[in-house]
This record gives sequence, C-alpha cells and structure tokens, in this order.
Amino acid sequence: MAGHIPDGGSCLVVYASNVGVDSKGNVGTVESSGRTNGIPCCGSSIAAAAAVAAIAKKGGTKTSTAPATTTVPLLDAHQHSVVDMLLPYADRLETANDKMVELPYCVYDAQKKMMASVVTAGRRAIVGTANIAVLGGIQINTPEDQSDYYLPLSFEVFNKKGRKLEDLTVLL
Amino acid sequence: MAGHIPDGGSCLVVYASNVGVDSKGNVGTVESSGRTNGIPCCGSSIAAAAAVAAIAKKGGTKTSTAPATTTVPLLDAHQHSVVDMLLPYADRLETANDKMVELPYCVYDAQKKMMASVVTAGRRAIVGTANIAVLGGIQINTPEDQSDYYLPLSFEVFNKKGRKLEDLTVLL
Repeated sequence: MAGHIPDGGSCLVVYASNVGVDSKGNVGTVESSGRTNGIPCCGSSIAAAAAVAAIAKKGGTKTSTAPATTTVPLLDAHQHSVVDMLLPYADRLETANDKMVELPYCVYDAQKKMMASVVTAGRRAIVGTANIAVLGGIQINTPEDQSDYYLPLSFEVFNKKGRKLEDLTVLL
Repeated sequence: MAGHIPDGGSCLVVYASNVGVDSKGNVGTVESSGRTNGIPCCGSSIAAAAAVAAIAKKGGTKTSTAPATTTVPLLDAHQHSVVDMLLPYADRLETANDKMVELPYCVYDAQKKMMASVVTAGRRAIVGTANIAVLGGIQINTPEDQSDYYLPLSFEVFNKKGRKLEDLTVLL
C-alpha cells in the first residue's frame, strides 16, 4: 500500500463485501454474463455462512475452523479465514429476517475490522506525510443488462499515525 | 472460476509472477507512478526469498514457516504461504547468477503448480463442456513513462476432465 503512494500524495483504499441480486430480485444469487442460470453470489460468503450455521448448531464453541496443522494449502486457508471471520456473526445471521440480505453486512463488518489492521500495517511504511482515506461498503452485482451498484457504508480519513482526521460517513 | 464461464463458452486463466525493472535497468525494483525512488518489486517475493535464504543458512530442514497455531491472521498467512512455496527453490536462488532475475522464474514455477490445483478444483464445478486455457508468465513492471511487459512462459488447453488438449507453449 505505502509503496504505491506518489511523492506528496495520499492514499484511497476502497473495499467491499459482495452480494448478487438476480433478475427476479432474489438476493444471494445472480446470473453471470452469458449464463441463463444464477450462481451463488458471493459464493465464498454463502459457503462460510453455511459452515458457521453448522458450527452454531453443534454448540458453537469453536473459534476457528482451520485444521490443526501448519500446512493448510493457501486455497483452503482463504475459505477457513472467511469462516473464522464470520463466526462472531452466527447469532445475527440466524436471527435475521433475510439471511442473504444480512450476510453481506456481516461480511462488511468483519472486513472493516480486517481493513483496520491492513491500514495499521500499511501506514507504518509510509514515507512522507500521506493520509489514508478508507471507503468501505457492499458491491452489489446484478444481471449483465443492468448496472452494478456500490453501497458505501463508511468513509474515514486517517493520518499516517492512525489518528482519524475526518469521518465522512455522514455524507453517504 | 466455473461459475463465470458463459453458457457454451470456455475459460481463459491468466496468471503471472511479478518483477520490476527500474529506469537504470536494475532488476527487482521499480519507481512507482509519481515516485522518485524505487520500491522492491515484487516486495512479497523479495521478502520471501530473504526468509528462504535465512532458513537455508540455518540448515534448511524446514518445510513450512507458518506458526504452529490454527489462528494465523490471513494477512500473515499469505506471506507464510509465499515463503513455503518458495522453500523448494532455495538452492536455485542461492546459486543463480542474478538472484533478482531468477526469483520471478522460481515464483512462476511455484505458481504453475498452485494453478494446476486451482484449475483441478475449478474444472470439477464446470457445467457443460467448457475447456480451460491457462496462460502463465512473468509480469514485468517498468517506470511510468514506459510500457509494462508480460513475458508468456506456458500456454496450455485442458478439457473439463483435466486432459491436456493442446500445448501452445511452443508458439510463445
């Protein structure tokens, strides 16, 4: 992150969780370009939510789903991390009116915490006086004949020491 | 991967390791847009190569650098994985004429193995008769007043059962 900030410039970080809405208005699925049938969207989040629900059903005491080994392949490690980050939201997902609507908000909340640690690590490598603006939200994918959407949920500006200079979330 | 293949269509997967060449011709560093001084490029690979060299110096018996815990944060897990994937190339890196030139080739070789497992996992989810073309190489970043380059190193076509239909690498 820090290595790509221009001399005298600052940094804008944009992140988002992801959800699909199909042509019939169903949330959590979307027809990809050139496809008649929808796919789960976001597939990773939906698979993680199913894993979290299964853990909660069994007593919900786990704090991590990663196998007790140091040689987890990177591909599996990604999905384990998504499950681990979603575990604290098990109750919120189970009691939601519409789990597929609640899911991208839960993933966004988990991402927001993760992005704070990314920005903390990144700002320590900043040369000069760059600030960091962080915009977070939900990316909403729709069928190919419609525009996709980005729903902004937070917009904050930090200095390189981590002090919040401005919270522009109220403008969203 | 499979979920985004259009009905009746096929799939092109492009991957690359990454290296920078700066304005003076130095390999392993590049001046990013708007910056006078270069940054390590690829920073992750170079950090991993340093970790691999340190392990080799100590005897080189490790097969993984990941901590013996199931709760490695995802950010650290990424870099641990890069180091782990690069460990088999310790000797090749140490004996290279120019380590910074050899590094992106080693990372590419490691990626090629990883991509084989990605494609194997992905093709099992293919609906219909889609083929998968896989193009691998090295992404070469240069200063902003020059074009970047992509050095193709392999180009293979597989069917959904994993059989290699064509090896177009000879054309590169």
